[in-house]
Amino acid sequence: MKIELLSREKVFRDPVHDYIHVQHKVILDLINSREFQRLRRIKQTGASLFTFHGAEHSRFSHSLGVYEVSRRICDKFSRNYPSIADGDGLWDDSERLVVLCAALLHDIGHGPYSHTFEKIFNTNHEELTIQIILSDKTEINQILQTVAPDFPEKVASVIQKNYPNPQVVQLISSQIDADRMDYLLRDAYHTGVNYGRFDISRILRVIRPYKDGICFTYSGMHAVEDYIMSRYQMYMQVYFHPVSRGMEVILNHLLKRASDCYNTPPHPLKNNATFLIPFFENNWDLEDYLRLDDGVLTTYFNLWLDEEDPILSDLANRFLNRKPFKSVAFDHVNDGKIITEMTEIIERVGYEPTYYTAINNSYDLPYDFYRPDSVHPRTQIELMDHNGHLIELSTVSHLVASITGRAGGDERLYFPKEMIELSKEVNLFQQELERFKELKKQLEN
Amino acid sequence: MKIELLSREKVFRDPVHDYIHVQHKVILDLINSREFQRLRRIKQTGASLFTFHGAEHSRFSHSLGVYEVSRRICDKFSRNYPSIADGDGLWDDSERLVVLCAALLHDIGHGPYSHTFEKIFNTNHEELTIQIILSDKTEINQILQTVAPDFPEKVASVIQKNYPNPQVVQLISSQIDADRMDYLLRDAYHTGVNYGRFDISRILRVIRPYKDGICFTYSGMHAVEDYIMSRYQMYMQVYFHPVSRGMEVILNHLLKRASDCYNTPPHPLKNNATFLIPFFENNWDLEDYLRLDDGVLTTYFNLWLDEEDPILSDLANRFLNRKPFKSVAFDHVNDGKIITEMTEIIERVGYEPTYYTAINNSYDLPYDFYRPDSVHPRTQIELMDHNGHLIELSTVSHLVASITGRAGGDERLYFPKEMIELSKEVNLFQQELERFKELKKQLEN
Amino acid sequence: MKIELLSREKVFRDPVHDYIHVQHKVILDLINSREFQRLRRIKQTGASLFTFHGAEHSRFSHSLGVYEVSRRICDKFSRNYPSIADGDGLWDDSERLVVLCAALLHDIGHGPYSHTFEKIFNTNHEELTIQIILSDKTEINQILQTVAPDFPEKVASVIQKNYPNPQVVQLISSQIDADRMDYLLRDAYHTGVNYGRFDISRILRVIRPYKDGICFTYSGMHAVEDYIMSRYQMYMQVYFHPVSRGMEVILNHLLKRASDCYNTPPHPLKNNATFLIPFFENNWDLEDYLRLDDGVLTTYFNLWLDEEDPILSDLANRFLNRKPFKSVAFDHVNDGKIITEMTEIIERVGYEPTYYTAINNSYDLPYDFYRPDSVHPRTQIELMDHNGHLIELSTVSHLVASITGRAGGDERLYFPKEMIELSKEVNLFQQELERFKELKKQLEN
Amino acid sequence: MKIELLSREKVFRDPVHDYIHVQHKVILDLINSREFQRLRRIKQTGASLFTFHGAEHSRFSHSLGVYEVSRRICDKFSRNYPSIADGDGLWDDSERLVVLCAALLHDIGHGPYSHTFEKIFNTNHEELTIQIILSDKTEINQILQTVAPDFPEKVASVIQKNYPNPQVVQLISSQIDADRMDYLLRDAYHTGVNYGRFDISRILRVIRPYKDGICFTYSGMHAVEDYIMSRYQMYMQVYFHPVSRGMEVILNHLLKRASDCYNTPPHPLKNNATFLIPFFENNWDLEDYLRLDDGVLTTYFNLWLDEEDPILSDLANRFLNRKPFKSVAFDHVNDGKIITEMTEIIERVGYEPTYYTAINNSYDLPYDFYRPDSVHPRTQIELMDHNGHLIELSTVSHLVASITGRAGGDERLYFPKEMIELSKEVNLFQQELERFKELKKQLEN
Repeated sequence: MKIELLSREKVFRDPVHDYIHVQHKVILDLINSREFQRLRRIKQTGASLFTFHGAEHSRFSHSLGVYEVSRRICDKFSRNYPSIADGDGLWDDSERLVVLCAALLHDIGHGPYSHTFEKIFNTNHEELTIQIILSDKTEINQILQTVAPDFPEKVASVIQKNYPNPQVVQLISSQIDADRMDYLLRDAYHTGVNYGRFDISRILRVIRPYKDGICFTYSGMHAVEDYIMSRYQMYMQVYFHPVSRGMEVILNHLLKRASDCYNTPPHPLKNNATFLIPFFENNWDLEDYLRLDDGVLTTYFNLWLDEEDPILSDLANRFLNRKPFKSVAFDHVNDGKIITEMTEIIERVGYEPTYYTAINNSYDLPYDFYRPDSVHPRTQIELMDHNGHLIELSTVSHLVASITGRAGGDERLYFPKEMIELSKEVNLFQQELERFKELKKQLEN
Repeated sequence: MKIELLSREKVFRDPVHDYIHVQHKVILDLINSREFQRLRRIKQTGASLFTFHGAEHSRFSHSLGVYEVSRRICDKFSRNYPSIADGDGLWDDSERLVVLCAALLHDIGHGPYSHTFEKIFNTNHEELTIQIILSDKTEINQILQTVAPDFPEKVASVIQKNYPNPQVVQLISSQIDADRMDYLLRDAYHTGVNYGRFDISRILRVIRPYKDGICFTYSGMHAVEDYIMSRYQMYMQVYFHPVSRGMEVILNHLLKRASDCYNTPPHPLKNNATFLIPFFENNWDLEDYLRLDDGVLTTYFNLWLDEEDPILSDLANRFLNRKPFKSVAFDHVNDGKIITEMTEIIERVGYEPTYYTAINNSYDLPYDFYRPDSVHPRTQIELMDHNGHLIELSTVSHLVASITGRAGGDERLYFPKEMIELSKEVNLFQQELERFKELKKQLEN
Repeated sequence: MKIELLSREKVFRDPVHDYIHVQHKVILDLINSREFQRLRRIKQTGASLFTFHGAEHSRFSHSLGVYEVSRRICDKFSRNYPSIADGDGLWDDSERLVVLCAALLHDIGHGPYSHTFEKIFNTNHEELTIQIILSDKTEINQILQTVAPDFPEKVASVIQKNYPNPQVVQLISSQIDADRMDYLLRDAYHTGVNYGRFDISRILRVIRPYKDGICFTYSGMHAVEDYIMSRYQMYMQVYFHPVSRGMEVILNHLLKRASDCYNTPPHPLKNNATFLIPFFENNWDLEDYLRLDDGVLTTYFNLWLDEEDPILSDLANRFLNRKPFKSVAFDHVNDGKIITEMTEIIERVGYEPTYYTAINNSYDLPYDFYRPDSVHPRTQIELMDHNGHLIELSTVSHLVASITGRAGGDERLYFPKEMIELSKEVNLFQQELERFKELKKQLEN
Repeated sequence: MKIELLSREKVFRDPVHDYIHVQHKVILDLINSREFQRLRRIKQTGASLFTFHGAEHSRFSHSLGVYEVSRRICDKFSRNYPSIADGDGLWDDSERLVVLCAALLHDIGHGPYSHTFEKIFNTNHEELTIQIILSDKTEINQILQTVAPDFPEKVASVIQKNYPNPQVVQLISSQIDADRMDYLLRDAYHTGVNYGRFDISRILRVIRPYKDGICFTYSGMHAVEDYIMSRYQMYMQVYFHPVSRGMEVILNHLLKRASDCYNTPPHPLKNNATFLIPFFENNWDLEDYLRLDDGVLTTYFNLWLDEEDPILSDLANRFLNRKPFKSVAFDHVNDGKIITEMTEIIERVGYEPTYYTAINNSYDLPYDFYRPDSVHPRTQIELMDHNGHLIELSTVSHLVASITGRAGGDERLYFPKEMIELSKEVNLFQQELERFKELKKQLEN
């Protein structure tokens, strides 16, 4: 493995971590690569900025942050817990570079509004991350190869969680990893809410390696508990905000409508959407994917304002000019009949339900212990007492126990705001709209 | 004048001012207008993010901030200095709405990377601001008209500085106005530097109206001085950063090359750049302008990567993938010959000077007193002593005096980084490159 | 009631709330009174500064902060929920002054290290608060009387929770009152931990009056939940820190020993402790109490370093020079025998157990709903949904439910650190000390 | 030299630097010494808290902070500029321990309100610092001796600026040293003003050793400039605040009156002021000095409230209960006659001028270059360009040049506030008071 250090440390000023410190040439080269620079043009929190206007930061900034957190952890580990003998469960600092690269690149496969985009076009940002790292056509791959021919595979395997050293894997992906630590702090910073500001200094003091991964000294239990609470609050108050989801629903329907127009045209697209065509045709490759960014999508949306298809241009207008769908929460066990009736009214009033209604649920498991039979068993958070015994977090924290394995979030019906904004003029559908509002009120009680 | 208040105050969470408070329906409508939402897609500090990656915030956020600062000043004024009789030089709160609208809209005419764009395409964001406010085709104008038929004119005249009440004008444009107060704080917040964090709470305590505009109580002298220092530091350390200017130079040349290719093609553009064509043809209208945003430009740059014209695709690549031109400062009085020789070498090595070199100067007058004979005479900052006399700031502050009327900044020659990065292979132009580096060194001493 | 406003608002710069705004002459006079200025000499968090050295702030700063929080709440209430008709459950702003005075004075009866001091000398800071407000010998009382002859009684009754308007009472004392809001933020600020930094801006947006007190709009549920978590974390991580308690134990024993020496002298006190004598003699009046402050105590401790009594001078030294007792947590149900044996060893080694051991338990009920049969039933936190119905917090928050009615904290045995710091020299008591450490280890497993 | 490292780093949570990191046993022992713990009872900014109530922090916190800043600088130096050969002008990390000890102890000789106290009692905190370090009766000395017998002398010589290595000396005392960096940040943090918040992260990046001391890389010029501005602002706005000085004047007169009463009694002191007697008798030793702290002084002031001497008890009351003298600025060149007349009126009205008036001037030289003929020539701030040449700061910064060698501050006459607060009742001295106010107004114009 060829590890080249910079003659002089290079820094990037960062509002969250003060400075990002780069000491390895390969890291600097990765940052300067085409695939990584592209992350500047992809926002970190998608539609959240329509609720919290400050959330305009990119995946580029976040990726630098994850890198920096992981670098600081490596520093702590190598200073306080250096491995002396094989298998002693301590930190082997020759893992540092693979950690740093994986941290920096863990989100490299994200595209514009990924979570919505992939539902429509069957892309998968996790698979794409691996592809970008492994494909010898990318600059990322070529740079990683300068370290060692099998280095790209190593980095990829960390992200895929099958790298042999569990400490390395858990630094990058676990319930308290460098990724989450950065995004909670960064998203809190930019949205202007306080909820995400857990005590990272203290977390970095109590984190430690052990033979099966990373854990936390018992004295840091409350700091870890506090981090879980921050995460929970950010999901409840920011990430699941109903208005942002009202914009995501529009985006989803808009992309779907464009695809439908392209493929089964009553109203064929006049304007070519060059970069999207491979996706409409479900025949895209990595190069096509790497051309996409937030600006590409909004540029096409801008073009579609003038399309003949009324649904397409209407949805484009709603997205570009922030006209979110409204919503009401419901309980899918008991409220099915009401939802059906509401959907029928929406259709009767003239909105095509496929494009003008949506059921959207946002749920998050704020924490869970390891359940071997689960679909995605989680690496549980372990505390180490001063005798070296491990204790799973929720067994000692009532707070964490109270939300362990219990999904937080809700399920909502989305619909055009026109359904509840009665205009003052006489309305053909006055009766339907009144009924709609009545049903909405029933759900709210 | 019809002033409609919202039944319930509406707030926007803001990372800089905590909350933006909206009490008037017209303000909410303006924020929701198409022209204003468009500002979400235009970054506040242009190419600064290539140096300070956190500077990803938009003109949308800044405009809300200017609105909020001006709203707080109106609150102070109406509480502490309400006008009792005409001409008493105190605050007439019936001016509030025109202040708030002007504050919110003062940047509405900005387009993507305006400062660079306007040099190439003869757009002018200040004139466009007025046009957007006055043209009856915009939503902005229609919303303003709901207040009074002449209200758009009023708002425009505040921005044009010919509104009769000088207090209103100076709140929006003077050497210490709501605009500057917001951008210093906001740009400091996002870049992560401290320099811009002056003490706005104290400034808002000492600001006051008087018959010829706004001034500051004498006891606040040091707070005002501190604000001037913040502004000076932000210019020196952030806005004039040589690397950001190295990206602006590329952007300038890229837009110019695209225009040249379109108009005088050896290599005609293959890909249509729909939204730019009216600008290439120097035949655009307001509607064309409103279609532009940062994403539109980068989308075309992305397309141009594949153009046949090697200069166009090279410059597009340099901009998208952050490969700034390097630079060296010089003194245009004494260093003319060196600059000429350096430029000639660049050309000899094979770079067309029009697109691969630039002289860029960035100067700012951090403060000046009123000079009636100046091209742009400035409203000087006045302090009011407890006898009601006014004292111009620089007469009592040595610090401010030391930078008054003295432009800060520098002049630089920009060139491709390849000129100073000698590759290890034998190079045809080795001798020229050595000479180039030697000349550069001479300038640096 | 005579309410005199200041001709110009007076402000105090505050690190937590930016500015404290004083608009009433009576408030300014109260702040300038002798009894209130005395709070500058009494630390807010007592022995916490021996663990978190930054916690050096006084009850003076905190009292200003509580005043300011309550003032802001009054502003919100009077702007958003002004009472229109008697009994409408909205806010009657004529209550403002009694709220502000009660907020400012709620801690006026505190003395130096009150919680420890009162255990030894039977003082009671809550009764003393009332006495200071009601006794016509205090400046506080005389100032309050300028408002109305019965105004002192009114202010006192708010603090005693029998003022008729429950909104007023709950602003000052409830599970989420102005007092707690200030101390969480202020103690977090000075200790340097993040745990106490809940989102006060949002809390102040969702707080509202209703006919039986104050409540929170349902949409603010998570913000209230977050406040409860902050409070819980501050108790667990700061207020109950074992080291601070190790200093409180010493203080307790030191005061007790001094009192014992004075009253039952083998070693009579040589140095007069003028200000403490009335307390030693259990014959003190309000004037005696008002002479006490942190500095008075440490001045006597300093004198006692030279006393003949070895226990007194040793404990004085331990307190002044920060030599905390060490401790071990135990379970009083199961560990009784071990504790007994440990205490016996301490005695055998030569330490008088009364002054050199202690059982200290610190428990806090982070939240509870109203339990009519409880000794101190709590005003539960209510959320108001948009139909005006009230919902008790723990019924909708799993997190809060998990800690509702469940005391957090622990019970510890305290002992001199010499018991576990084996010196290298041969030690007469080597065997006892070994056994002691063994027992300690048993408790820790 | 015996350097013992702790088996595990010990940290102190700090609100300004996040954590203070202690790695050497000797540092921990010094912190735990009697003389150092005493600093907890001495406030950092003396009477400033009477203006900025938050400024309640102690010299203990500040001393830890100076230690931490110097530790971070040593880390930077040893990482980036390690000496390779003798005399290469780079950093010799074997100097680290002497730097850390000198940083920690540089203020150990401070007593309560030193600046005022030393004027009355001829103590000198700088000499006392040296004495505490060198006297073999102190714990400090004994701990330092464990490193090496001559280690106390070494530490003392750093503080006295005659240690051979100028880098070590300048880290502790120069115009931009660890001491000033900490107090600007810390005092800003606790007062709640922003002025002191310079960009320490960047300063720590650009600071570097050279053969004659420490300097800064040229690229950091603006960051250093910004630090000078912060320092200037803190002096102008915080340290020289007229109200704090009005309290210092009272303290000065109070201590003087007590000394006069003791020594030339018309009214002998009834209450013994045990700890002050050696100072009244001008016959004190180090042990006497170490007994003093803020609380000792206020305890005696409290006792003196009941003294027969009316001036003593009145001044004690004014200090304890914050009744500052008022003041007016004047120009000692031109205003001598007015000041004389004002002083005469004060005397005529019945106030003894020695105790009820004062001329107080506060001036600071925010920066100066090295002037060999000056009484206290200053180590000038040097910038190193990339050729290794040194450039004195004020030659390249107009801002710094404008305040170089120019003292900022003012001169004021202090007097009892009763002189300008006309009571409503008929006043014997009405005419004198009117004249007094007239003269004051003349000075203010």
